[in-house]
Amino acid sequence: MFALNQWYVAGFEWEFQERPIARTFLNQPVVLFRTGEGTIAALEDRCCHRSLPLSSGTLEERGLRCGYHGLLYAPSGLCLEIPGQEKIPARACVRPYTVSVRNQIVWIWMPSEPGGQPDCDAPEYAVHDDPRYRYRGDVYHYDAPYQLIHDNLLDLSHLGYVHLRTIGGNAKIHMHAETKVEEQGNVVRVLRYMPSSEPPPTYTAAWRFDGLIDRWQEIEFDLSHLRIWTGANDAGAGSMRDAGRGGFHMRGFHGVTPETDVSTHYFWTVAANRHPDMPDMMDTVYEQSALTFEEDKVVIEAQYRNMLQFQHAPQIDIHVDVGPNRARRIIERLIRETAG
Amino acid sequence: MFALNQWYVAGFEWEFQERPIARTFLNQPVVLFRTGEGTIAALEDRCCHRSLPLSSGTLEERGLRCGYHGLLYAPSGLCLEIPGQEKIPARACVRPYTVSVRNQIVWIWMPSEPGGQPDCDAPEYAVHDDPRYRYRGDVYHYDAPYQLIHDNLLDLSHLGYVHLRTIGGNAKIHMHAETKVEEQGNVVRVLRYMPSSEPPPTYTAAWRFDGLIDRWQEIEFDLSHLRIWTGANDAGAGSMRDAGRGGFHMRGFHGVTPETDVSTHYFWTVAANRHPDMPDMMDTVYEQSALTFEEDKVVIEAQYRNMLQFQHAPQIDIHVDVGPNRARRIIERLIRETAG
Amino acid sequence: MFALNQWYVAGFEWEFQERPIARTFLNQPVVLFRTGEGTIAALEDRCCHRSLPLSSGTLEERGLRCGYHGLLYAPSGLCLEIPGQEKIPARACVRPYTVSVRNQIVWIWMPSEPGGQPDCDAPEYAVHDDPRYRYRGDVYHYDAPYQLIHDNLLDLSHLGYVHLRTIGGNAKIHMHAETKVEEQGNVVRVLRYMPSSEPPPTYTAAWRFDGLIDRWQEIEFDLSHLRIWTGANDAGAGSMRDAGRGGFHMRGFHGVTPETDVSTHYFWTVAANRHPDMPDMMDTVYEQSALTFEEDKVVIEAQYRNMLQFQHAPQIDIHVDVGPNRARRIIERLIRETAG
Repeated sequence: MFALNQWYVAGFEWEFQERPIARTFLNQPVVLFRTGEGTIAALEDRCCHRSLPLSSGTLEERGLRCGYHGLLYAPSGLCLEIPGQEKIPARACVRPYTVSVRNQIVWIWMPSEPGGQPDCDAPEYAVHDDPRYRYRGDVYHYDAPYQLIHDNLLDLSHLGYVHLRTIGGNAKIHMHAETKVEEQGNVVRVLRYMPSSEPPPTYTAAWRFDGLIDRWQEIEFDLSHLRIWTGANDAGAGSMRDAGRGGFHMRGFHGVTPETDVSTHYFWTVAANRHPDMPDMMDTVYEQSALTFEEDKVVIEAQYRNMLQFQHAPQIDIHVDVGPNRARRIIERLIRETAG
Repeated sequence: MFALNQWYVAGFEWEFQERPIARTFLNQPVVLFRTGEGTIAALEDRCCHRSLPLSSGTLEERGLRCGYHGLLYAPSGLCLEIPGQEKIPARACVRPYTVSVRNQIVWIWMPSEPGGQPDCDAPEYAVHDDPRYRYRGDVYHYDAPYQLIHDNLLDLSHLGYVHLRTIGGNAKIHMHAETKVEEQGNVVRVLRYMPSSEPPPTYTAAWRFDGLIDRWQEIEFDLSHLRIWTGANDAGAGSMRDAGRGGFHMRGFHGVTPETDVSTHYFWTVAANRHPDMPDMMDTVYEQSALTFEEDKVVIEAQYRNMLQFQHAPQIDIHVDVGPNRARRIIERLIRETAG
Repeated sequence: MFALNQWYVAGFEWEFQERPIARTFLNQPVVLFRTGEGTIAALEDRCCHRSLPLSSGTLEERGLRCGYHGLLYAPSGLCLEIPGQEKIPARACVRPYTVSVRNQIVWIWMPSEPGGQPDCDAPEYAVHDDPRYRYRGDVYHYDAPYQLIHDNLLDLSHLGYVHLRTIGGNAKIHMHAETKVEEQGNVVRVLRYMPSSEPPPTYTAAWRFDGLIDRWQEIEFDLSHLRIWTGANDAGAGSMRDAGRGGFHMRGFHGVTPETDVSTHYFWTVAANRHPDMPDMMDTVYEQSALTFEEDKVVIEAQYRNMLQFQHAPQIDIHVDVGPNRARRIIERLIRETAG
């Protein structure tokens, strides 16, 4: 079950070059491609003639041509040409999807009915265009349902157990961090502050700290993506709760788009401010983030395989589950609202 | 659903040396082997004792010996020996299949009832024994149902999109070729003629043409196999519709035998006449044909995976589907006739 | 269907070092680990919080700590610590299993009800601690149900067909061996004697024989494991039926523990007495036994795949099946007795 009438992340703009891309969203196979006008379009990934994936075809100025018998489709989904045949039947078309590109993120609108149009703009993510930051990212694939990734990102207490090699740090401090959970509309915010803690490996590799650090983790959940603002300053150097704070900043974008009921696309970027004396630190931040998210993937996929083994086993909640559980209730409500 | 009481291709004679071969036909696992008398026999691939595949066993003068406890089976399916035991129970036997070898093609009769005998000879394919041609072939496996391969072979308009590297040529000319579809009994014939067209890569690699060519494609569909006679002559050098035509001739045999409901054996040979100045052209013809059929396999398997994704999506027909659709109706009728 | 209220083999003591081991027994995923006190414990392999396998966690003095949020479990299954949380809910626990280590074999009690306690000691296997023998072993995995492995071990007549490279020997002699089958309680014994036979490769590689040998095979089946005492002496050198017989002795332990309905753990050791002039013969015996059991695995897995192909095909019994069939009846009875 998925919440519909929502924008979901479909990719990053830099992925779309001369070849179409096949991706399934919410159980619907879609082909995405750059049009002759330079925008990005999305169609049902199936030729209406003999069902070959259109993503096996080739891009032309006017659209996407099927690789079997050459039917040509416009970005609107209409068939423009059936080679060797004059008349093009009215049924010769495939379903189009509405796409919006914003801050280098490609969004797709997943309507509750075919043809349903967006009732709002695609989300903004200004960090990608903020000159104070540089960013890089990647697309990962999970053999696990999307909500397990939400759980993971909304509960950073796991850093001390899962990510000791990168952004972890002392497990005890993480589990006892001052934590505040806020809810507003369909957004859940989890705010965590850890004064005077040891800097973890990624932080010392990317920034110069004098010793202990004041560390913050501010997570904002939205159905389709999470924004995570983490960072640290030298202990006592200023308020770590103030958005104008100094020090080292990592800003994560996490697009979590269901592929199927049991698999998920994970579109992430990490942005950081640059330390004046460390020109290469962005490479370090990217590599350590990639490593961190690979560690999460190992844990979450193992968790899901085990949930399948123990079908009806009960789970208990602990103190870290407040944020994840609120997000789950928002999703349940959005699913109910768009189901009927 | 399969048409029964039919000969299907089970292999090529050259495949049968000192080891038995396991192959499933129409969901029935079969072991094929060369007997002590040099003929080829086929049995249910299961020892009647503890169900080991007989294809794991070893060939002897009198038959096939199971590799677990040594039960020996005659080509008739009767158990001839149970080592260490005097009495051989009457039930100690496995189901035999009727096999016929003709023109180096191994045919198996698939009856509607176990024990049902052929009511006709296995098909002839005289090209294999025609001194004007030399031929080579191979056995491919498809993860796709057999009818998608029929569709592909009965509709050569796809050559201009799928096989540009080998036998393709100009897509437009292919899609606009003069095409005639004939039906006679259980045979469908698709005849296509393309005067004054560009010779495709395989043709120029295998023959000497002066410039443009008159090109023909004559396809004959039979439930179990297709015979495809293609070729070309210098443009204007004589009628391309006359069976006595000169020039370059490629004659394809395409045995399409269902393995299961969703997979297929594809037994193909290609025969060509030899250009007097090009002694090695048969190697070229074989290699380019192998490449061509690998391209078809990629397309058809992608098509089938996508059909599974889009379970109930409708398909539209275009002008090239006349031949394939007639073949499908013949198969439907043959299935109905042998089902009851 | 499995017989419950039984000890099954869970591993060998030497496997348990600094990391926990995940193994599924009778469809139940279990984590096994060495405790701070040096004993071996077994728990349900699932954190009660978010279902991560506990086998992904780390061992500590007090127990096993989950690798996601750090919950610490005692060998009893009780959760001892939830980092960052004072109160530990009563439901924070996982199911423990009773384990017993005897003669370097790790046994697990599989009760018919969670919490059910053993009503007998784990089986003894004194050969492992008998100074006349040295032994080595390994753990194999079968994609086949456990009873096919029982069949194989209770019927050594297959040696002449499957194991010609190691312990086979003349197939005819094997199939005609004098064979006696005895049953006592839940134990089946198959005794086979082959006077004046050719020594097989493993025997000549591990011992000095003058020529022909008197060879014995004594198999004892128990639900959870088989003990197989094979060996040979120079032909005529003394009674091969007398437990005090001389010559070359191989004693096999074969723990056969269902993993799932369709897969099995196979825990084996082979012990041999040492020939005074052949110091390295134990390596030979081990390597040839490993090869032998790999040959069995190939046969049995092929057999099972074929049984799935031929769902309802009948099987016939031959003279070698007396022992295996008695074992099957004992298992059926034990399953009935513990099912209700």
